[in-house]
Amino acid sequence: MINWLEPLRSALREEFGDRPVVVALATVSLAAEPAGRHMICRGVGDDGRFTFTMDGRSEKATHLSAHASAECAIWLGRLRRQYRVSGRVTIESDAARREQTWRELSSATRSTFFGPPPGTPVVPGERRSRDANIDAQPGSFTVFHLVPDRVELLDLKTTPHDRTEWRRQTGWTALRIHP
Amino acid sequence: MINWLEPLRSALREEFGDRPVVVALATVSLAAEPAGRHMICRGVGDDGRFTFTMDGRSEKATHLSAHASAECAIWLGRLRRQYRVSGRVTIESDAARREQTWRELSSATRSTFFGPPPGTPVVPGERRSRDANIDAQPGSFTVFHLVPDRVELLDLKTTPHDRTEWRRQTGWTALRIHP
Repeated sequence: MINWLEPLRSALREEFGDRPVVVALATVSLAAEPAGRHMICRGVGDDGRFTFTMDGRSEKATHLSAHASAECAIWLGRLRRQYRVSGRVTIESDAARREQTWRELSSATRSTFFGPPPGTPVVPGERRSRDANIDAQPGSFTVFHLVPDRVELLDLKTTPHDRTEWRRQTGWTALRIHP
Repeated sequence: MINWLEPLRSALREEFGDRPVVVALATVSLAAEPAGRHMICRGVGDDGRFTFTMDGRSEKATHLSAHASAECAIWLGRLRRQYRVSGRVTIESDAARREQTWRELSSATRSTFFGPPPGTPVVPGERRSRDANIDAQPGSFTVFHLVPDRVELLDLKTTPHDRTEWRRQTGWTALRIHP
């Protein structure tokens, strides 16, 4: 029983509605430096896993293949709440699940996987592979999951602020902590 | 000449107006794990430094005292742009500048520095020091700066997306990179 899951999903629906769920994902670089960027969360499973997609040639893919853990921070500005979710990262190896996620992406998002490797310099005049067949899943397409070990909720609507954490190792027992 | 500075400040004004500038700050924990949380950026100086405040007893203070670097990711949802700013972190040692930042905080924010150490469990019935003198700066109040070494702008309004980076070591020369 994951007691933080339904309130979290409900808060995401209330905050984002039909818009993409934009979250900040922190990773650690090969040089052990902090890195963070915003990403679209593609779903939160019944098992509490957060699903994301990425280009396997990107910097964050390099980070995660060397150090498979992340923290995801979700700012809910309308609700004035923050969720933090940290744990280990697993790469989706099931072809059917990968294909399903691929089908759910917009064509605009799909087309981003067919360009040159992310982060490499743009060379003037180089050809962009814009007319690729974006129906077929490219090798660079990667689906990964953040499997939570700890979830934290900070509620700024109350004074003093309410802060609660849940940890897998304590069976997700809610613990109120100081903000 | 910091060529990314004025466009960035202008984008922050356009996106946030009078509201707090909420950003995601990534750090690395003592166990070399990624950590990320949202914070209010208190200003971007003429030298390009990003200023923040924190409780010196917080987890992120521990992270930064052991590993003084961070990446700040700023999602501008209305403009559909993301800035990423990474570099080293310095603690403000000038008492007058610290006092000035303290004066600029709301009383609600000031009062958060007088509670029990952040992250410690709430003990039922414990006294919250709500009636502290919130005019005087407490020892836990810390001002720090993120001194950028690299700045990146991702613009999602264009197709394909525009992505530009600037690095201190190349004199902040703009480099277009693949998204």
